[in-house]
Amino acid sequence: MARRKFRNPFPTVDIIIEIMAGRKRRGIVLIERKNPPPGWALPGGFVDYGETLEAAAVREAREETSLDVELVGQLGAYSDPARDPRFHTISTVFLARAAGEPKGADDARSAIVFDPRDRSLPLAFDHRKILDDYLGSTKGPVPCLKTTTAVRDDRVVRDNRVARLRTTPTSSRSRASSARSKRT
Amino acid sequence: MARRKFRNPFPTVDIIIEIMAGRKRRGIVLIERKNPPPGWALPGGFVDYGETLEAAAVREAREETSLDVELVGQLGAYSDPARDPRFHTISTVFLARAAGEPKGADDARSAIVFDPRDRSLPLAFDHRKILDDYLGSTKGPVPCLKTTTAVRDDRVVRDNRVARLRTTPTSSRSRASSARSKRT
Repeated sequence: MARRKFRNPFPTVDIIIEIMAGRKRRGIVLIERKNPPPGWALPGGFVDYGETLEAAAVREAREETSLDVELVGQLGAYSDPARDPRFHTISTVFLARAAGEPKGADDARSAIVFDPRDRSLPLAFDHRKILDDYLGSTKGPVPCLKTTTAVRDDRVVRDNRVARLRTTPTSSRSRASSARSKRT
Repeated sequence: MARRKFRNPFPTVDIIIEIMAGRKRRGIVLIERKNPPPGWALPGGFVDYGETLEAAAVREAREETSLDVELVGQLGAYSDPARDPRFHTISTVFLARAAGEPKGADDARSAIVFDPRDRSLPLAFDHRKILDDYLGSTKGPVPCLKTTTAVRDDRVVRDNRVARLRTTPTSSRSRASSARSKRT
């Protein structure tokens, strides 16, 4: 660790938002990016200092799609240094659900409900791979999603399985010290 | 995103290394920290710019425990701003396996094989919670671990299930552009 200096990858979140019609998935939400790289992508963005991944996922979903999402779980973290052409980001990908119609806002020019199996639309970043992993993971007989701490508004949801979510009291989300020093 | 400025949490990894005796788990590895906060902890550390999470996990395990680990999968990401008393870190936790005896090195004063159910040893950071989640997740009938890209030496292993790992050619790990700009 001593050789580690002050340069770090940037933590981000991306959210696969399933739009539900009753118990059936109509599709997932894509946004059309206003900023480079152009094109279609999953909603997402940077994690703020002092913000949990889960809070960032809920916030970014709301900012870019106007949807209030319920987080289901984490699908995994993607960290290939080449995944973003601009700089090295590490994205923790969340699965979430929402009802209604997405509406592009903030940095999203527009938002659509999209069939994740549709390969006709080129996606930015590694989002095609993320969607392929998502489609692969839902093929199994047991939902294989690991939720650590999923925040929905003021509630905290914890469990290991999609199908067995339960609620616990709100976690403390105190701000951490900002001192930057060596960590083992 | 426009309000996002240049402050980000720091990406880290922690590794639960199962020490195997044949097919049976003898225990997991803890290290005794040389640096503050003192005490026992899972091996882990910062992710370098340009380094995947998986490469960081293998590297930190080797540096701190002298073990060459095989990654099994990601257990989830922990991002409570209070999880580290010094500053805001986001840790992606890996499950890994190794054989042999750990030997503390680098920033680890010593290393031991530990029964993760043993609550007599106070652990630094949120590592007791991580171990509790790990113990909980292994209770299920199906290993519920999501592997995105697991690096072991020069091979890249990808799959969704522990039991069905397969190998693919080494991924390109080109350095990303370092330009820092706004991301949607």
